[in-house]
Amino acid sequence: MGNVVAHLLLTNSMTDPAPYSIMSRLTQYLPIIGWLRTYSRQDFNDDLFAGIITAILLVPQGIAYSILAGLPPELGLYASILPPTLYALFGTSRTLSVGPVSIAAIMIASALSAPEISALGNPVQSTVILSAESGLIMLLMALLRMGGLVNFISHPVLTGFTSGASLLIIANQLPQLAGLKSPSCGLNAACYSTYVQGFNVATLGIALAALSVLILFGKPLTTLLKKIGLSLSIVTAISKCAPLLTVLFGTLAVSYFNLQSQHHVAVVGQVPSGFPLLSLNFIDGEQWRLLLPSAAFIALIAYVESVAIAKVTANLRGEKIAPNQELIALGASNLAAALSGGMPVAGGFSRTMVNFAAGAKTQMAMLIAAGLLSVAVMFFTPWFEKIPKAVLAAIILMAIMPLLRLKDILHTWRYDCGDGIAEVMTLLGVLVFGIEEGISLGIILTIASHLRKSSQPHIAVVGRIPGTEHFRNIKRHQVETWQDLLLLRIDESITFTNIVYIEEYLTAELWRQPNIKHVVLIFTSVSDIDTTALEALENINRALQATGKTLNIAEAKGPVMDKLQKTDFVEQLKPGKVFFRSADAVKELAGAIEPRLLLGIKE
Amino acid sequence: MGNVVAHLLLTNSMTDPAPYSIMSRLTQYLPIIGWLRTYSRQDFNDDLFAGIITAILLVPQGIAYSILAGLPPELGLYASILPPTLYALFGTSRTLSVGPVSIAAIMIASALSAPEISALGNPVQSTVILSAESGLIMLLMALLRMGGLVNFISHPVLTGFTSGASLLIIANQLPQLAGLKSPSCGLNAACYSTYVQGFNVATLGIALAALSVLILFGKPLTTLLKKIGLSLSIVTAISKCAPLLTVLFGTLAVSYFNLQSQHHVAVVGQVPSGFPLLSLNFIDGEQWRLLLPSAAFIALIAYVESVAIAKVTANLRGEKIAPNQELIALGASNLAAALSGGMPVAGGFSRTMVNFAAGAKTQMAMLIAAGLLSVAVMFFTPWFEKIPKAVLAAIILMAIMPLLRLKDILHTWRYDCGDGIAEVMTLLGVLVFGIEEGISLGIILTIASHLRKSSQPHIAVVGRIPGTEHFRNIKRHQVETWQDLLLLRIDESITFTNIVYIEEYLTAELWRQPNIKHVVLIFTSVSDIDTTALEALENINRALQATGKTLNIAEAKGPVMDKLQKTDFVEQLKPGKVFFRSADAVKELAGAIEPRLLLGIKE
Repeated sequence: MGNVVAHLLLTNSMTDPAPYSIMSRLTQYLPIIGWLRTYSRQDFNDDLFAGIITAILLVPQGIAYSILAGLPPELGLYASILPPTLYALFGTSRTLSVGPVSIAAIMIASALSAPEISALGNPVQSTVILSAESGLIMLLMALLRMGGLVNFISHPVLTGFTSGASLLIIANQLPQLAGLKSPSCGLNAACYSTYVQGFNVATLGIALAALSVLILFGKPLTTLLKKIGLSLSIVTAISKCAPLLTVLFGTLAVSYFNLQSQHHVAVVGQVPSGFPLLSLNFIDGEQWRLLLPSAAFIALIAYVESVAIAKVTANLRGEKIAPNQELIALGASNLAAALSGGMPVAGGFSRTMVNFAAGAKTQMAMLIAAGLLSVAVMFFTPWFEKIPKAVLAAIILMAIMPLLRLKDILHTWRYDCGDGIAEVMTLLGVLVFGIEEGISLGIILTIASHLRKSSQPHIAVVGRIPGTEHFRNIKRHQVETWQDLLLLRIDESITFTNIVYIEEYLTAELWRQPNIKHVVLIFTSVSDIDTTALEALENINRALQATGKTLNIAEAKGPVMDKLQKTDFVEQLKPGKVFFRSADAVKELAGAIEPRLLLGIKE
Repeated sequence: MGNVVAHLLLTNSMTDPAPYSIMSRLTQYLPIIGWLRTYSRQDFNDDLFAGIITAILLVPQGIAYSILAGLPPELGLYASILPPTLYALFGTSRTLSVGPVSIAAIMIASALSAPEISALGNPVQSTVILSAESGLIMLLMALLRMGGLVNFISHPVLTGFTSGASLLIIANQLPQLAGLKSPSCGLNAACYSTYVQGFNVATLGIALAALSVLILFGKPLTTLLKKIGLSLSIVTAISKCAPLLTVLFGTLAVSYFNLQSQHHVAVVGQVPSGFPLLSLNFIDGEQWRLLLPSAAFIALIAYVESVAIAKVTANLRGEKIAPNQELIALGASNLAAALSGGMPVAGGFSRTMVNFAAGAKTQMAMLIAAGLLSVAVMFFTPWFEKIPKAVLAAIILMAIMPLLRLKDILHTWRYDCGDGIAEVMTLLGVLVFGIEEGISLGIILTIASHLRKSSQPHIAVVGRIPGTEHFRNIKRHQVETWQDLLLLRIDESITFTNIVYIEEYLTAELWRQPNIKHVVLIFTSVSDIDTTALEALENINRALQATGKTLNIAEAKGPVMDKLQKTDFVEQLKPGKVFFRSADAVKELAGAIEPRLLLGIKE
């Protein structure tokens, strides 16, 4: 027994290899200390470059995503300053770019459009409350060490959800390319004919120009620049300037040709100048209760998506993400967003990829980007006023495309039909019932299908390999069996989900072999028997005894026997017994009876 | 491959051993044909006796349970005639006594007390709709072959629920012993002092007398009669007449001493005479939608409890219950209850036990009981008018006691702490939040705890037993290992619930043994890899390759390989490989390196 305890201790210490010194503890909660200690001049050069590139992307994204959420542009900009700074202190990913993201933006839009919330007429305040609530929920989850809970959101559900949300965003942004709003006509044809009269040629022209630049700066330009022989990070830098360039040219076009007043091209409008004021005035009333469910879903998705993205880049460099610490970091970031009047934040997929590809070594890159953003907010907001909304719509559309993984759905379907169904149902759920309903549906479906699968454990009738004490599946090996002995190996823990299947399997086997006198259940793979299963085993034993048969157990593990010994199950089994090894059971129960040799079928 | 197919066919035919002749098919859907074919004179004698005893119990129970549900007494009586007759035709249990039951009664009371329903002021019609809806729900479940779904209600949840509902019934009935109604005072002390003034000495006297008779006719009398040497069925018969006797004496006392008018002893009141009219007038409006959730819970509990009780008696005689056919039988019974103006029905625990103990051989006993009940309804209803309610309360209290299994909860807690928590939470949920909320809470808790457990699969680092090709757990056996080779056996299917645990286990192991060059995952017990797990394995492979290690697979089963071959996973593994046997992997990867012998620790 002493050895077992020693081993358990060894096993535990294995998962936490670092000794708990004060320093390592501090590093655990403030990972920035970890990388600052070995930070070099070269690291800074790399981070400076990546930080500038990411900042160039953050400005148009911040404005675009707040407009996508139906908010004034400054909420996205404010969310790009303090939140990534907080994440840099607490986060375990070195390259994750925290800030406004498209999926959270569409979730905010959906929350704000609920009748009770839109009736309040204060979307900015509601958004700040959403930030605060999601932050608090994440910190609460961290406190309860619930980081592992998100493992129960399967990838198909996540992909289905992301694709569904992306489709919603595309449907929302496409009309904006032509200066139209999202239609709200339903099935009214007359309404649509009025609607399309809002069509604006100048806007469409700007949008198409922006789209062309964005597409050309993608694959065509990078291929060309690589051929010329430029280094990868320079190529990335140039190609990632496309959003800023389109914004710049769009703004210049609007100003120069006076498109806003002459051709009714919609623009961003005035953005307040100066640093966001830290404020606590969002602590206010009834809205908190109304917004709580939406905040919970935003927190869940923000956390799951961020960790997923963080893991991708961490894997590429052999770094490690600590899920529970991520909850703390993202929770702090969202609280910081609330304090500085920003929208909820998460790790952005495209931005993180840009940051990584531009050569970011640590979160210093994001600190630099946040610094540049605060300069922009202080001095350059008048420049943002004339940015045409159509250009932002084009930027959003290009950024959302990689998230629309319809091909993945096809792959999933081909690989695992059940997962494919869950994925499609989640996607349709998001489109038909709404964002939160869709993801709930997906989670319920995957758990139900998982339970259904686990209710059919693998069971094997086994026999002895001649001349040995090894027992193997009679379907796969040439083994000896005895005509009044049924050896059944159950390859999973016995619980309420699978005991009925096991019972039916046993009944069918006894029907097929009515001469069986002794049933031996081999428990090599059974690590637990729950209450329901125990009661069912007692019933099975009674039924067997009533027909003159015995139930026996072999190879039960220590913990299982410990549990059984708390009950009188072993007593009830008599004359059935508990055997240490299957070979012992055969020796005693088969007695002098000659085995017969089964011609096994090898798979 | 041909052999595999042949084997699959064999395996399938095993679970359905009977050939599908028309007769066997008919017997499957009308089990009555099965037992009528071999029905004997002796069987009839036994059934006649048991039928009379059960009928004697059914009359007071029928009246008592409808009063418990807050309904006129005839709804329980009507539910005791047509429903058991239908069950006799379709049911697979030979001794289950279908009719009104206490748990369903308290669920009906709870459904009727909902504000929207009680506002309608027509509890009788609402009850008949509940019967119809539960019947239809059961038939729908049968059609969808959802009989297996109830396996996901674990015994602890069922016990916790039954005990909680029993406590509610006791709290509801205890005041009635003293002529009081259930208090509705909340925390208002003044209200209570008015309330207790309703206290009625005469009622309490009758109730205590009834309780004494019921208790004396229980264990004390049966022990005595057995000592005298009477046969077991006669003893049962005498002891089970106690409810009828108390009703008889109670009624006589009320009539003779004029207790009703002189001492305000509450009585049952007028019961309409004659056979219930078959009616379809319950097909009516909005109520159907409002009552649907309650009907679903009643259907669920009625089905689960009935099957559980049917299994207990079937096990004792080596008979078999077909869950899906039970859904048909109970669905038909509840529809019959609706058609004949009765309350929802299920298999009753105490009544079935009485029926069984009195020697019932087949459902003929219940057909006889139903016949006697219809005679009672036609000719004897005037006799029911003066039955004191306090006597019925005493009968309910005595019948409910065996369902209050607080001792079981203690046992469960000691055997399996998680199950114990689920049980207590279900009980508390029923008491604090309500019947439907309690059972929902219990189901969610057990599924969550099941998922948590299944997210930590058994994983073993294995080595080779010297001189063999067998690989075993290094913690349990003396085995050979190789310093740059990690052999990891995963003892469960790899899915989204456990892949993160597996990943963390592998990471910790690699941290402990940084010299490892090749990781071999042994898939002997892996029967499925879902999409989430596959993506994670691809990431693990990428991370290993980034640090110059390889990922390899050994002993993958046919279906798993078939699935993997649909993807390019095997291609991605290169230079890692898929090996047929673990021994092949060692031969190729360890090469000429000498193994070291680990001193295994035997548990």
